Amino acid sequence: MSDDVLRMRAALDEARKGIGRTAPNPPVGAVIVKDGVVLGKGWHRKAGEPHSEREALADARGKDVRGSTIYVTLEPCSTHGRTPPCTQGLIEAGVKRVVYACVDRNPDHAGRADELLTAAGIEVVSGVCADEAEKILRPFFKVRETGLPWVIWKTAMSLDGRITRPPGEGQWLTGDLARADVQKLRSTVDAILTSGETVRRDNPALTIRVPELLEGRTQPWRVVATDKPETMPSDAPLFSDEWKERTLIRPRHDLEKTLRGLVKEQGVLTVMVEAGGVFSAALFEAGLVDEAVIYYAPILCGGPSPGLAGNGLRESLKMEEVEFRQLGNDVRVSGLVK
Amino acid sequence: MSDDVLRMRAALDEARKGIGRTAPNPPVGAVIVKDGVVLGKGWHRKAGEPHSEREALADARGKDVRGSTIYVTLEPCSTHGRTPPCTQGLIEAGVKRVVYACVDRNPDHAGRADELLTAAGIEVVSGVCADEAEKILRPFFKVRETGLPWVIWKTAMSLDGRITRPPGEGQWLTGDLARADVQKLRSTVDAILTSGETVRRDNPALTIRVPELLEGRTQPWRVVATDKPETMPSDAPLFSDEWKERTLIRPRHDLEKTLRGLVKEQGVLTVMVEAGGVFSAALFEAGLVDEAVIYYAPILCGGPSPGLAGNGLRESLKMEEVEFRQLGNDVRVSGLVK
Repeated sequence: MSDDVLRMRAALDEARKGIGRTAPNPPVGAVIVKDGVVLGKGWHRKAGEPHSEREALADARGKDVRGSTIYVTLEPCSTHGRTPPCTQGLIEAGVKRVVYACVDRNPDHAGRADELLTAAGIEVVSGVCADEAEKILRPFFKVRETGLPWVIWKTAMSLDGRITRPPGEGQWLTGDLARADVQKLRSTVDAILTSGETVRRDNPALTIRVPELLEGRTQPWRVVATDKPETMPSDAPLFSDEWKERTLIRPRHDLEKTLRGLVKEQGVLTVMVEAGGVFSAALFEAGLVDEAVIYYAPILCGGPSPGLAGNGLRESLKMEEVEFRQLGNDVRVSGLVK
Repeated sequence: MSDDVLRMRAALDEARKGIGRTAPNPPVGAVIVKDGVVLGKGWHRKAGEPHSEREALADARGKDVRGSTIYVTLEPCSTHGRTPPCTQGLIEAGVKRVVYACVDRNPDHAGRADELLTAAGIEVVSGVCADEAEKILRPFFKVRETGLPWVIWKTAMSLDGRITRPPGEGQWLTGDLARADVQKLRSTVDAILTSGETVRRDNPALTIRVPELLEGRTQPWRVVATDKPETMPSDAPLFSDEWKERTLIRPRHDLEKTLRGLVKEQGVLTVMVEAGGVFSAALFEAGLVDEAVIYYAPILCGGPSPGLAGNGLRESLKMEEVEFRQLGNDVRVSGLVK
């Protein structure tokens, strides 16, 4: 593994710390290295706060970064946003070499960093660990390119694909480890989308309940898609708990429009869906799902409540980058929806 | 790991060679060791042929087995069956020590070996690796205790639990590795049970097609459960191929009786079910399934054909000894049904 790859991996680790915290900005990480020594590292913590390059420079304060190499997971910005352009900061700091993973596809940025930096005598290398960086950045790129958020369908099912146990057996399918994993998953998203029916039936809180996962971020938006807002129980946790101002009611009849609205109004990048089979099917049928995370409990249920209902998809959806792992007695399968 | 455990593991490996070949007898293996050297090993190959102890003694022919230890995965038989009792053979051979895994639960045998062998001055140790041996022997024990075969439900599903792809996409859900695994699974059973509906719809051959897997055994019985035998297409492979005499038509309305009949008439130990969701549900609802093997293809389908249909189980069925592994792009999950 080349030194550049090794250092970029460290920058990717930084970037991952920002997942779920930076919307509408992307999670980005940076590492500054000189003579084989890490002088500083950082990640973009929140929109309005410094970009990762500035965080890394700040982390290296007091050390001589002149002649160093900086590894960044996304092309440094070259325009004034809420913060001054990073290209300028790097030039001023005397960095000698800039290695970045993904080109910023924003036409105002794309490739401009190379020009500006090269003109200042800085060596630029791009594309290092681009695939790994792309995985972190794809919600950001999708929003940019389509105006739609990255949508993760999360469900917990029996091995035969049911989301409801037989009457009298209680609500939970999966065990502690799977439910802890759902908490982590919630902490990576900006909004959780559910249906009015799920609210009426299961009355979920849809919150992050692990304090450490809430550090540096607030609860995700909780979005209830319903065309009958008047039927929502006002005493439900979603409408009465301490996070009730993080609950939104949005139309159900046009889910694409509802999702676009979350991008425009709330600035979300990633939405997780936690709902029943009929609502899930509507999202799939509209081609709005990008990723699926399924927790299988080691039971068989049969019965009328499949995790994915509806009349059947016109074409089967193939999954890519499928990963699976055991969580206690449960199995987690995840993948991208083609 | 003690020496006894190590040697018993080798005997278990021998026993496994017999799975799917020995019905109505159990698959059993044996290893003979003297002064740390393996003198012989063997497994029971087929009903009517020598038991594993005699196979191991034959394998040791020309070597002096007097004073040796024999490891057997099941208590040696003490009665005359189609072959003379193994206890007598071991006494005559001058074996000094007999280590076996599982007690034979047949009241004509259980514990009798200990008496006979001890009376002949042979040391007897039982229970070594009993759990592992039990896994190999449970179909045999179930048949003995209940008159019902061990039933393995095998299905291939999309991640959302469907067994049918949308129209026009073809029949196959899983990939080559999963289908090769199904071939291996078929080679471990004595009969494959399907429904008349599956025959009409999918027209399966239900054969072992890998020549190596057929060595030393014949095709499994292919059992079609239907109450309308007159509707079966006579030109279907099941009724017209070179194995057509291995196809049986049996009543569908009383599946328990049908299964009992396979034990009584065909001497089967293990039956694998390969059928649709409605038939599968009937078996589960009747409490007739012992083990499930599910192959998940990385696609989502939705639609009207769940792998497990029906009105829902009265109680969810919990799975034990759940194992999962990746087979190409597919995931295989297996477990025992409580």
